[in-house]
Amino acid sequence: MIPKIAPIADAALSQSLADAINNKTKPLGSLGRLESLAGQLGLIQRSTRITIAQPAILVFAADHGVVAEGISAFPQDVTWQMVENFLGNGAAINVFARQNGCALHVVDAGVNHDFGDRAGLVHRKVANGTRNFALEPAMTAQECATALEHGMALVRDLPGTVVGFGEMGIGNTTSAAALMHKLTGRPLARCVGAGTGLTPDGVRHKADVVAASVALHAHAVQPLEVLATFGGFEIAMMTGAMLKAAELRKVLLIDGFIVSSALLVAARLQPDILDYCVFSHCSGEHGHALLLEELGARPLLDLGLRLGEGTGSALALPLLHASANFLNEMATFASAQVSERSA
Amino acid sequence: MIPKIAPIADAALSQSLADAINNKTKPLGSLGRLESLAGQLGLIQRSTRITIAQPAILVFAADHGVVAEGISAFPQDVTWQMVENFLGNGAAINVFARQNGCALHVVDAGVNHDFGDRAGLVHRKVANGTRNFALEPAMTAQECATALEHGMALVRDLPGTVVGFGEMGIGNTTSAAALMHKLTGRPLARCVGAGTGLTPDGVRHKADVVAASVALHAHAVQPLEVLATFGGFEIAMMTGAMLKAAELRKVLLIDGFIVSSALLVAARLQPDILDYCVFSHCSGEHGHALLLEELGARPLLDLGLRLGEGTGSALALPLLHASANFLNEMATFASAQVSERSA
Repeated sequence: MIPKIAPIADAALSQSLADAINNKTKPLGSLGRLESLAGQLGLIQRSTRITIAQPAILVFAADHGVVAEGISAFPQDVTWQMVENFLGNGAAINVFARQNGCALHVVDAGVNHDFGDRAGLVHRKVANGTRNFALEPAMTAQECATALEHGMALVRDLPGTVVGFGEMGIGNTTSAAALMHKLTGRPLARCVGAGTGLTPDGVRHKADVVAASVALHAHAVQPLEVLATFGGFEIAMMTGAMLKAAELRKVLLIDGFIVSSALLVAARLQPDILDYCVFSHCSGEHGHALLLEELGARPLLDLGLRLGEGTGSALALPLLHASANFLNEMATFASAQVSERSA
Repeated sequence: MIPKIAPIADAALSQSLADAINNKTKPLGSLGRLESLAGQLGLIQRSTRITIAQPAILVFAADHGVVAEGISAFPQDVTWQMVENFLGNGAAINVFARQNGCALHVVDAGVNHDFGDRAGLVHRKVANGTRNFALEPAMTAQECATALEHGMALVRDLPGTVVGFGEMGIGNTTSAAALMHKLTGRPLARCVGAGTGLTPDGVRHKADVVAASVALHAHAVQPLEVLATFGGFEIAMMTGAMLKAAELRKVLLIDGFIVSSALLVAARLQPDILDYCVFSHCSGEHGHALLLEELGARPLLDLGLRLGEGTGSALALPLLHASANFLNEMATFASAQVSERSA
C-alpha cells in the first residue's frame, strides 16, 4: 500500500548538472541556494532541463476532536468558514496561488460540516472530524488507511510536475506537536507552540493536554499507529499524497509546521521521500525550526509566516521558477563570449 | 542639487494600515514580514491600497581604474562583455526580470568600451572608467556630480512605483568596500570580501590595496568627497537615482553589496531615504551582512546570492506583489463571515 520511493542520487547526472550550472555567465556559485535547488530539481526530473509545469497546491481541511480540550485560540467553526473563504477566493492562499500561477485544490478531508455539493470543493471526507485523542485514538486504523488512500489517489490525478501542500484545521498544531514529539523524541516543550495565537497560559495548557494524551497512548510507536492516534484526517491525507507524489517523481513543496509533521510521518515510512522535498519556509510556529532540523531541511524563505494554508509553498514557487529558468535560459560563457576568470 | 527626502511616518495612516491588515482572515501577525512590508509600502504610497505598477530595474555598468592593482578574479573586459550579455538577454538579471514582469534598463555609466549606438542601451557614460584610486581620486568632483545628475534624470523619466537597482563593474566590490570602511568606520577586514571569487591571498591583497588607498586619501571625509575618491560611476549614478526615487516616493528595491554601498552614501546625505528602501536580500559577499546592519536593514531573502546585476531585487519582487495583493485582495473576517478569536 505504501509506495516505494527511490533516492534521486545519480553521480553522472549530478556532474552534468554542475557543469551546466557552472558554465552559466556568472561567478562560480554566485546564485547560491538557487544553484543547489536547480541541482535537486534536475535529479528529481532526471534531466539537465527543469520543467515547472502546472504547479498545484492541495489544501486539505479537517477538524480535530481534541479541540474539546480548549487548545485553540479560534472556535472549531473557523475550519469550515475558512473552507468557504477558500471557495470564495478570499483567503491568503487564494491570493498567493493566483499571483504565482498555481492551481489550488481544496479538499474536505474531514471537516465537521456539511458543505453540500459545492463547485470547487473536492469531497474526500473520512468523517466529521477526528475523535478527541485526549480520550481515545483520533481515528481507527481503517480511517487512517482511507485518508492515506484518498491522498494518493488525488495526486495520481494531478497533471503537473510540482505539488505543494497546505492545510486548514482548527486544532491541528496540537496534532502536529504530538506527532513530532512521538516520532522524534524531542521534548514536548520544543514541539508545542502558540498555533493561531494562544497566550502563554494557553500554550502551557495545550502542552499539558498533549503530555497526558501521549501518556494515555504510550503503546503507539509505529509511524502509522502514531498517525492514527494523534493525527488529523488532513495530515494523514497529506502523508498519502506526499508518498504518491514522490513515487511519481514530482517536486514536493513543503509548507509550515503541520505540513512538515505529515512529511515526518511519510519520511519515517520512506526516508528517501526527503530527496523530493523543497522546504519553502521556516514558520514562526514554535516547533517548526526544530522539525526542519530533524528533517535535514534548509528552508528557502524565513519571513515569520505562521498562517498555514500552503501560503509558504505558494510564496516560494517563484524561486523554483527562478532555478529552472536560470538553468534553462541563461547564456554560457562560450555562447555569450564572456571571458572566464583570470585569477 | 541633492533632493530633500521626507520621512514616511504618519501615525493616523499607520493605524489605518494596521487595522486593514488585522481585519484580514488570518491569525494576527501570521503573515510575518509581509505585514510589516505592507505597512511600509502603504506609508510610502500614502494609502491603504498598494500599487505595484510598472516595476523597473536599472542596471548601471562602469569600469574601475583600481583593477590595475589586480584586485579582481575576472579581467576588466568582462564588464562590457556582460553588458553585451544583458543586451542579448542572456544574463541572470534578464531571466529573473522577465520571469517577474519587471522592465530592465541597462545604463552605460562609464564602461571602458565603445558600444556604438545600441538599441536597448542607455548611454550615460561619464568617462571610460574611473581612475585608479590607489594613485589618485577615482573621479573629479564634476564627474561625480555628473553621475549623480544622470541618475536623478533617469529616475525622473521612469513611470512605475517601484525601482530596483543593479550593477555590473569588474572591481566594484573594491570600491564598495572602501566606501563602507570610510563612511562607517568599520574595520577594513569586515568590509573586504572575495567579490567574484578571489582566493584568500587575493582577498588579502585587495585589503592591502584599499588600506593604502585610504591612507593616501585620508583628507576625504564628506560623503560626496568619499564617493568621488573611491566610488565608481555606476555607484555614483545609483546614489543619484536613489535620492530622486525616494523624493518621488517610489519604493526602492535594494540589491547586494555594491548597491547597498551606493545607498550608504545616499543615506549619509539624506538619512530618511532608508524609509523608502526594501532590502531584497543578504548577499554572500563578506561585508554585506554588516553593511545591512549599519543601514538598520532586514533583508527579505537570504539565499547566498553574490551575483549583483540586481538579481536579488528581481527575485524579491514577487514578495512585494504578495504584500500588496494580500492587503488589496484578501477578505476580512466580516466580509467572509469568519469567526474571530475566542481566546
